[in-house]
Amino acid sequence: MNVFIIGTGLIGGSFALDIQEQYPEAKIFGIDQNSDHLKEAKELGVIHEAVTFDALSDADIVFVAIPVNATLSVLTNVLDAVHDNAVVIDVGSTKQDICEIVKEHPKRRNFLASHPIAGTEFSGPKAAMKGLYQQKTNIICEVEKTAFKLQERALELFSKIGMRIRYMDPISHDKHIAYVSHLSHISSFMLGKTVIEKEKNERDIFDMAGSGFESTVRLAKSSPAMWAPIFEQNKTNVIETLEEYIGNLQKFKELMQENNFQAIYEEMENTNHIKNILNGIR
Amino acid sequence: MNVFIIGTGLIGGSFALDIQEQYPEAKIFGIDQNSDHLKEAKELGVIHEAVTFDALSDADIVFVAIPVNATLSVLTNVLDAVHDNAVVIDVGSTKQDICEIVKEHPKRRNFLASHPIAGTEFSGPKAAMKGLYQQKTNIICEVEKTAFKLQERALELFSKIGMRIRYMDPISHDKHIAYVSHLSHISSFMLGKTVIEKEKNERDIFDMAGSGFESTVRLAKSSPAMWAPIFEQNKTNVIETLEEYIGNLQKFKELMQENNFQAIYEEMENTNHIKNILNGIR
Repeated sequence: MNVFIIGTGLIGGSFALDIQEQYPEAKIFGIDQNSDHLKEAKELGVIHEAVTFDALSDADIVFVAIPVNATLSVLTNVLDAVHDNAVVIDVGSTKQDICEIVKEHPKRRNFLASHPIAGTEFSGPKAAMKGLYQQKTNIICEVEKTAFKLQERALELFSKIGMRIRYMDPISHDKHIAYVSHLSHISSFMLGKTVIEKEKNERDIFDMAGSGFESTVRLAKSSPAMWAPIFEQNKTNVIETLEEYIGNLQKFKELMQENNFQAIYEEMENTNHIKNILNGIR
Repeated sequence: MNVFIIGTGLIGGSFALDIQEQYPEAKIFGIDQNSDHLKEAKELGVIHEAVTFDALSDADIVFVAIPVNATLSVLTNVLDAVHDNAVVIDVGSTKQDICEIVKEHPKRRNFLASHPIAGTEFSGPKAAMKGLYQQKTNIICEVEKTAFKLQERALELFSKIGMRIRYMDPISHDKHIAYVSHLSHISSFMLGKTVIEKEKNERDIFDMAGSGFESTVRLAKSSPAMWAPIFEQNKTNVIETLEEYIGNLQKFKELMQENNFQAIYEEMENTNHIKNILNGIR
């Protein structure tokens, strides 16, 4: 089985590592426009061989694990290049534009739209890790548009590396994911910005910040090259979440200004309920 | 050495556990208005004996580890009750009002204002843990107002349990801590609220939320009884941080509305710098 990983970073590289373990006979080919990453991925054993798009006709499975704007640029070319029995899987954090761009493609049935809910704030081949997908959810969109035997091949692979599958339409995916993922990233980036702007003396941040600050700004380490295109493709939903978030912050501020600390208490108490939700995630 | 812990929860209980280890001869007395907590603290071995305020005249060291509004209510009574050679240490997350209330107290020199930058999102005696303060910063305010030999006793204790000391005036403390701690909590609570309001079907949150969401909303599990009084006592500073945070979110939203994703990219890239700051915290 020839597996092609387009984008040998955290997400693509972690698939490569788990596939090597589950399919010892698989040969892993890497494609990356960043030649340093490609070299690094080879050296780290994430991929077996560095190739270019020209080699795609040999692929049985292709993972497209690059920023979502780059996926929009290359996806139809990838489908053009693969043979009739290959499955091309994208793993981007937006699904609507990506499903739209391949809608009329003659090889639409060779494509599977997915979003593995997994990752860290790090990027590049060094960030790839075995077992990243263990017990994580993979959201698959428009599964009925993928050829049945290719669905089977992809689902067997996801199952072997420990993923749970959930099916969803691309519009619902983009709407929900704006709340539970995209908004968290903006909240974190802007929190980091607010503190950095204020605390010109970093020593003060080092000394006074604890694990709480660290936890809330962790996502502000994330890659802008990955996230700017996600916000662009999910613009309408993300703006809606931002408006609701800003509205809630504004209301909290007004309650403070009115010295209504009983209401502040209740706001927090109602949200404490998040404990149960987070227990459900684990 | 008789150590009194007023408030046998996460913070006070963790001091009790570390003191037991470092001072095997110390006897730990617990005071708590929550009788279940007091019983639990005894059963868990966090304290040796449950007592009331009447016993305070036997104390050599007193930790006041209760919500900051309760500290304001009881602190002068605690100082009244202790003998002339006792040190009373408060560990609250605000310092200005607390220093103010004891300013003219005849036993002001028996008081030390501190803020250990340590904790988790959990509370109560079960949340107490050994080693919580290892390599954590303890901010001490107005140290010059504490009797020298009592400073020494407190600093030796902090040093034995592994804390670094930083000195600061109460006004600066409250201003900085609003940015690096209080704002993170509001950001997290309001993020949790925004998502819970939207995702009426919790199954969707379970399935779609990943570790990023978990990290940013972790603090929304925190105790409202502890946090509402902190926001009240640090109202002016917290409102200022909220205004700056809301302003940054608003600007981010406007950049998205203008399709200026280059600027969005740059905002994130500039904030990526937080990596170095967080490395400084660890």
